[in-house]
Amino acid sequence: MAEHEHGYIHRKDDYLKRLRRIEGQARGLQRMVEDEKYCIDILTQVSAMTKALQAVSLGLLEEHMSHCVLDAARASEAEGEAKVSEAVEAISRLVKS
Amino acid sequence: MAEHEHGYIHRKDDYLKRLRRIEGQARGLQRMVEDEKYCIDILTQVSAMTKALQAVSLGLLEEHMSHCVLDAARASEAEGEAKVSEAVEAISRLVKS
Amino acid sequence: MAEHEHGYIHRKDDYLKRLRRIEGQARGLQRMVEDEKYCIDILTQVSAMTKALQAVSLGLLEEHMSHCVLDAARASEAEGEAKVSEAVEAISRLVKS
Amino acid sequence: MAEHEHGYIHRKDDYLKRLRRIEGQARGLQRMVEDEKYCIDILTQVSAMTKALQAVSLGLLEEHMSHCVLDAARASEAEGEAKVSEAVEAISRLVKS
Repeated sequence: MAEHEHGYIHRKDDYLKRLRRIEGQARGLQRMVEDEKYCIDILTQVSAMTKALQAVSLGLLEEHMSHCVLDAARASEAEGEAKVSEAVEAISRLVKS
Repeated sequence: MAEHEHGYIHRKDDYLKRLRRIEGQARGLQRMVEDEKYCIDILTQVSAMTKALQAVSLGLLEEHMSHCVLDAARASEAEGEAKVSEAVEAISRLVKS
Repeated sequence: MAEHEHGYIHRKDDYLKRLRRIEGQARGLQRMVEDEKYCIDILTQVSAMTKALQAVSLGLLEEHMSHCVLDAARASEAEGEAKVSEAVEAISRLVKS
Repeated sequence: MAEHEHGYIHRKDDYLKRLRRIEGQARGLQRMVEDEKYCIDILTQVSAMTKALQAVSLGLLEEHMSHCVLDAARASEAEGEAKVSEAVEAISRLVKS
């Protein structure tokens, strides 16, 4: 079943590290609000955190497409189509978020 | 070679109609500026036009993935990978634009 | 009443020029679909057009805030608040589009 | 000096609560990666978290504009202009992030 494992597994540690850093950014934002920092400086940190999250999504998406979508395409036309629809819905949520 | 034609071709007329409507929105915006309409009303129209463009991209992307990417996946692992990389770069530009 | 004219009026020609270029991009996209160009190349053009529209919105927004919002702030607290709410709604539509 | 305090202070607890929830979402994402959940489900959570962050920014921005920007506008033309430029730069980072 190696074919069907999730693509990001090979870089699990990398993703965990990036998500821990993002968690740290969320804590940093709480400290800024607690210390009543200037709004614009808080907004700058929110933009940085959003960009970090976006980079995580694009990375996960690439691995999903390289593994799950391509594997499905090789398995059957119907499976390939189903995975593409699902991926496009996820992309649509990313583009709109 | 039917396998390698671009996916959107089957809906060419639909895409042309949507793009003509977007072209019309661009002309409408020029009229609004010409007539010195209220900024906020112009911004509302720009948002509508951006959403229409986004819908066109997501449609084209879905057809590209259903046709070119899946066909490439069936052709060979290397071709599949190459098409996925190229698609993810395009998605990244969409997410950031 | 000079105070209440729309800010962008002083750069009307610049905005009209940018919007005509955007209209040209919409026509260019129709030609690409007509000529059955490669999807990814079409998506690249859509991203460029979206960025051009975004630059127009940010420009209009800056002029709106420098003129209408600041004038309203000077006129009365209530008018200032009303213009800020209206501007934030427009910004929210831009962020989500 | 009450006029110059940051607008969000009056809702500090609300912002802290929202940011703690966002921190929790970042931890939830780490658990999903740890447990090797399906990529698309992870992407859905990332989109939800991005939307929550976006709502925080739009809220902070509204309070910043209602307080700091309007106060500056009443203080002097130059201060008003400076705060508008700064706010538009922050909005531009939000729109692009």
